[in-house]
Amino acid sequence: MGRKVDLPVHRARAYLEPGPVLLVTSCHEGERNVTTMGWHMVLEFTPSLVGCLISAGNHSFELVRQSRECVLNLPTIGMIDTVVAIGNRSGHDHDKFAELALETEPATEVAAPLLADCHAHFECRLADDKMVDDYNLFLFEIVKARVAPRPKHPRTIHYTGDGVFVVAGKVVSRRSDFRPALLGNGR
Amino acid sequence: MGRKVDLPVHRARAYLEPGPVLLVTSCHEGERNVTTMGWHMVLEFTPSLVGCLISAGNHSFELVRQSRECVLNLPTIGMIDTVVAIGNRSGHDHDKFAELALETEPATEVAAPLLADCHAHFECRLADDKMVDDYNLFLFEIVKARVAPRPKHPRTIHYTGDGVFVVAGKVVSRRSDFRPALLGNGR
Repeated sequence: MGRKVDLPVHRARAYLEPGPVLLVTSCHEGERNVTTMGWHMVLEFTPSLVGCLISAGNHSFELVRQSRECVLNLPTIGMIDTVVAIGNRSGHDHDKFAELALETEPATEVAAPLLADCHAHFECRLADDKMVDDYNLFLFEIVKARVAPRPKHPRTIHYTGDGVFVVAGKVVSRRSDFRPALLGNGR
Repeated sequence: MGRKVDLPVHRARAYLEPGPVLLVTSCHEGERNVTTMGWHMVLEFTPSLVGCLISAGNHSFELVRQSRECVLNLPTIGMIDTVVAIGNRSGHDHDKFAELALETEPATEVAAPLLADCHAHFECRLADDKMVDDYNLFLFEIVKARVAPRPKHPRTIHYTGDGVFVVAGKVVSRRSDFRPALLGNGR
């Protein structure tokens, strides 16, 4: 994976809205973990808000809730076996970073590490915890985004359940059919 | 589009978790509309909960808020021009059903119509409106789901912004690498 470049945070939607599996890294008081996440959504451009569901039974849940931070890392098809391995073991009894030899880099704004092999990294701070108790739903603000400049449309993986993924395929532009007000500024 | 079959509502995740653009139909006191939606997430299997963002400026917002119902229809790549046309005109001043000659069918549980050309239909009732005022975020319960039996993995479209979509491509199974507890029952 080549060098990453800064992305304006309001443009995170380009990577998150298509609905890929993400790898969530967290760190609280020196303890860190990584988990898979397929249940998330964009909520706003500015501030750059994203809703993320992390089950209360997951080891990451308390790390995220207490540190109030995380990083959303975007894996692509080349990482699928790593993604499956991360999703199928628990941080309660596994050091996934060591066992899976995950290469990490320090983040800029949060304590959780970046996963170097991922295509993009979205550093997040908890913006609203009102829905955590009822739904395990965290509302994060993306405070820093970095992305590999190429390819522009990475081959992300999208989970359908039951061990089966679909991979992002053909890119289709209908830009010329859009009203100008719906284009630009990340919209 | 061939005849659709019932789907257990907890299995809606197979179609929604990958993150496709949806077409949301609504109806309140005889007035109906349809809008595109890319900001949504699965929140629970049972009850079958999904979070959906519908902007307050959209004509559909009040129809959904007041009727407390909608249908999430799943379009595929063959409908992309219809999807773009729906997203680029407002129900405030357009009857999109008439202008775009959208074929509809009655739903079972709600007043909003099904879009016949879509691959699947998820009939929804508003389950929690606590996040509507702050975030335009509706939590719906899927109360009825119908889907075309084939293909099992439809070529859905996923929006990246700026008029550009990615299409669901290759299907990759890693089922044999999953812990049994993470498979079956729609999980």
